[in-house]
Amino acid sequence: MIKRVLIANRGEIAVRVIRTCRELGLKTVAIYSEADRESMHVKLADQSICIGPAEAVKSYLDIPRIMSAIEVSGADAVHPGYGFLAENPKFAEIVKASKKIFIGPSAQTLELIGDKIRAKELARKIGIPLLPGSDRCVDVKSAIEIANKIGYPVVIKASAGGGGRGIRVVRDEKELREKLPLAIEEAKVSFGDGRVYIEKYLINPKHIEVQILADKYGNVVALGERECSIQRRNQKLIEEAPSSSISDMQRKEIEEASIEFCKAIDYEGAGTVEFLMDQDGKFYFMEMNGRIQVEHPVTEMITGVDIVKWQIKIAKGEKLSIKNLEKKGYAIEFRINAEDPYTFMPSPGKIEELYLPGGFGVRVDTHIYCGYTVPPYYDSLIAKLIVWGEDRKSAIKRAKRALEEFLVSGRGLKTNIEFHKRVVSTREFVEGRHHIKFIEEMMV
Amino acid sequence: MIKRVLIANRGEIAVRVIRTCRELGLKTVAIYSEADRESMHVKLADQSICIGPAEAVKSYLDIPRIMSAIEVSGADAVHPGYGFLAENPKFAEIVKASKKIFIGPSAQTLELIGDKIRAKELARKIGIPLLPGSDRCVDVKSAIEIANKIGYPVVIKASAGGGGRGIRVVRDEKELREKLPLAIEEAKVSFGDGRVYIEKYLINPKHIEVQILADKYGNVVALGERECSIQRRNQKLIEEAPSSSISDMQRKEIEEASIEFCKAIDYEGAGTVEFLMDQDGKFYFMEMNGRIQVEHPVTEMITGVDIVKWQIKIAKGEKLSIKNLEKKGYAIEFRINAEDPYTFMPSPGKIEELYLPGGFGVRVDTHIYCGYTVPPYYDSLIAKLIVWGEDRKSAIKRAKRALEEFLVSGRGLKTNIEFHKRVVSTREFVEGRHHIKFIEEMMV
Repeated sequence: MIKRVLIANRGEIAVRVIRTCRELGLKTVAIYSEADRESMHVKLADQSICIGPAEAVKSYLDIPRIMSAIEVSGADAVHPGYGFLAENPKFAEIVKASKKIFIGPSAQTLELIGDKIRAKELARKIGIPLLPGSDRCVDVKSAIEIANKIGYPVVIKASAGGGGRGIRVVRDEKELREKLPLAIEEAKVSFGDGRVYIEKYLINPKHIEVQILADKYGNVVALGERECSIQRRNQKLIEEAPSSSISDMQRKEIEEASIEFCKAIDYEGAGTVEFLMDQDGKFYFMEMNGRIQVEHPVTEMITGVDIVKWQIKIAKGEKLSIKNLEKKGYAIEFRINAEDPYTFMPSPGKIEELYLPGGFGVRVDTHIYCGYTVPPYYDSLIAKLIVWGEDRKSAIKRAKRALEEFLVSGRGLKTNIEFHKRVVSTREFVEGRHHIKFIEEMMV
Repeated sequence: MIKRVLIANRGEIAVRVIRTCRELGLKTVAIYSEADRESMHVKLADQSICIGPAEAVKSYLDIPRIMSAIEVSGADAVHPGYGFLAENPKFAEIVKASKKIFIGPSAQTLELIGDKIRAKELARKIGIPLLPGSDRCVDVKSAIEIANKIGYPVVIKASAGGGGRGIRVVRDEKELREKLPLAIEEAKVSFGDGRVYIEKYLINPKHIEVQILADKYGNVVALGERECSIQRRNQKLIEEAPSSSISDMQRKEIEEASIEFCKAIDYEGAGTVEFLMDQDGKFYFMEMNGRIQVEHPVTEMITGVDIVKWQIKIAKGEKLSIKNLEKKGYAIEFRINAEDPYTFMPSPGKIEELYLPGGFGVRVDTHIYCGYTVPPYYDSLIAKLIVWGEDRKSAIKRAKRALEEFLVSGRGLKTNIEFHKRVVSTREFVEGRHHIKFIEEMMV
């Protein structure tokens, strides 16, 4: 039984989780750093506990402090949100060892899918296509061998990386010789795991991912795909559901592959299987993410399914009971970041004027309010604007008007709202011809 | 062709209309009184024109001033919103005579449905059930005759009334003799039309209404019903779609009656046919409203159909093309008024703190923002909170959490948010046993 949920996170996702807990009649416990005292998740929770100073390593990433907060508050379950400890197998393990419920997959599963090389091995075993080259970790010598076989450009990836971190593209052998040792060093420092692998580098692919729910009894449901091709430096900025570029056949193909992958690892909870799609419409398995994702609302908007609610229900041991899944319309999410729209440098500050867009087909997930100071210590995401339309064209029109309405201002504070307006006005985006390198091309 | 729309209204409905105009690529012109200079509709419109002092008779109800604003701005169409001039046949006529498009039914139609007695005569003619007694206007003598025939209690209604205004309940002949002359006097003063009629007074009925769209070519579509039984002094406070209390058969019955009524009067645009349902599930035609209604969003939330968009498309001469209308889930709207939650007295003032609820299944339509001063001159509606859930139970849970989150405060400013929290916690509302007298019973 779950009665009291501690949310081991901050910002909009903490607010998101609190909302669903409330709707389920569960008590909520917020944790916060000294920099987040005035944050909305603290105000909305039934109870809140300061767990340390601003730096995340001493607060949101500090497992002993969080475990103390769980003990003190009497929480019987933990929702980790995304980022921070969300996919940390050690945290999941400790929570379980303390006889508390970790709302997410098991430590073993997190360990497996967190190791990108093992995850790919498994995908290969069950027949899911992979990018050429991506079957084992490499040193310089083996990397050159593989690269010669699959052809340049290739991409070096950290086995323990993810979310776009730990990625380098190399165009020839000389570059490979130079960058591979650097990549190994960086991976050691960033992830404590120096293993890297190389893969064929696709020209202008699309990022397509499948949202999965899986219960404790082997039932797995795919809630359709999202396209997240609007990225900058491998960080997603705009996501949509469904993808404008895949057919029902293709959807079926990646949904079935994703379900099979989840079944093979006894996956439990909400998760996302990520693919790249090349210009010929061929899919390649990239990785599986074992958390709620930032972009989950676009799936909620077209399916009506509350994904966070299902995370909690699954953790409680409920059986999946999503019948007659019907998708309706089109949804697009914009990540509103407190950052300079041209340099993309973070731009924290106090919000002095705020107008959040609203009305039909508009959803805003945020922790900000008028008078709130965006702290400089964390991710620059301050709000997610999600729009729904009966088709993609209507959704884009609604997005434009909602972005026009959206007003966040304050001394020194900048946002990427203007950037989003630019993207949705490009012919490439409107026609669905955008790909993961589009922003870099556009920004030139 | 429509290129530029003047919105002859204020508040949340002006914002609502501007939003859809933007999505349709139309330019917008706001009009405002001196008291509304800082209102959001003024900020959001492409152009705005001050048309007079705070008093509505000298601004929002002043046809010559509005016509001047139309001329000056070069608007080619007018959206009247609700209230003010929305159902004024003279205004519709003058707009048309000026070769501008009135986004709504014709003056003739407004005249007909504005005359409640003529509207009922027509309903009777086409076989739609009416409350006993409601067939003609009365004087004291004929009123007593009819009342004796149909039995007390009866209700006196002004033929030109509507929206709950001009209604009196009488329980016996003595009261009828007393109140009928008063009602006639009041109707003369309020509506410039002293005609009144009497009807059987139902015990604890439900208010059920059907949303209609009708194009210029005789196509009429019913978008399902709304239940608006939570009323105080005949003013709706909470509305929902669908009704929790009717069967598919009953829905079909009132949808068909409504469509037939619209066809009989060559109705054009969005409209609502209102019924009372007695405790035996029998329906009685009450009136038709020829405007967008405050509660239209609940229908939008379950159908995905943008009603304001269709109003504009129909006015432009487009054919209705709503295919495969699918309804999904349950929506409830709460009218957030700036009023004392106990006395219901208006309570204007400056908004110093504001947090609008958000997240999955939550829509807010509002013109307020942090720093905005609610003026004392107009309707006290400051926001509409609309929640959606996969079923009524989920929608109520979401409503509770959204009402909990909703924060509007300022010196002297009060809202009815607490009142709504009370209503959604009653067993009657949760079980769908509420009726139009429920609030009066609850408040005792």
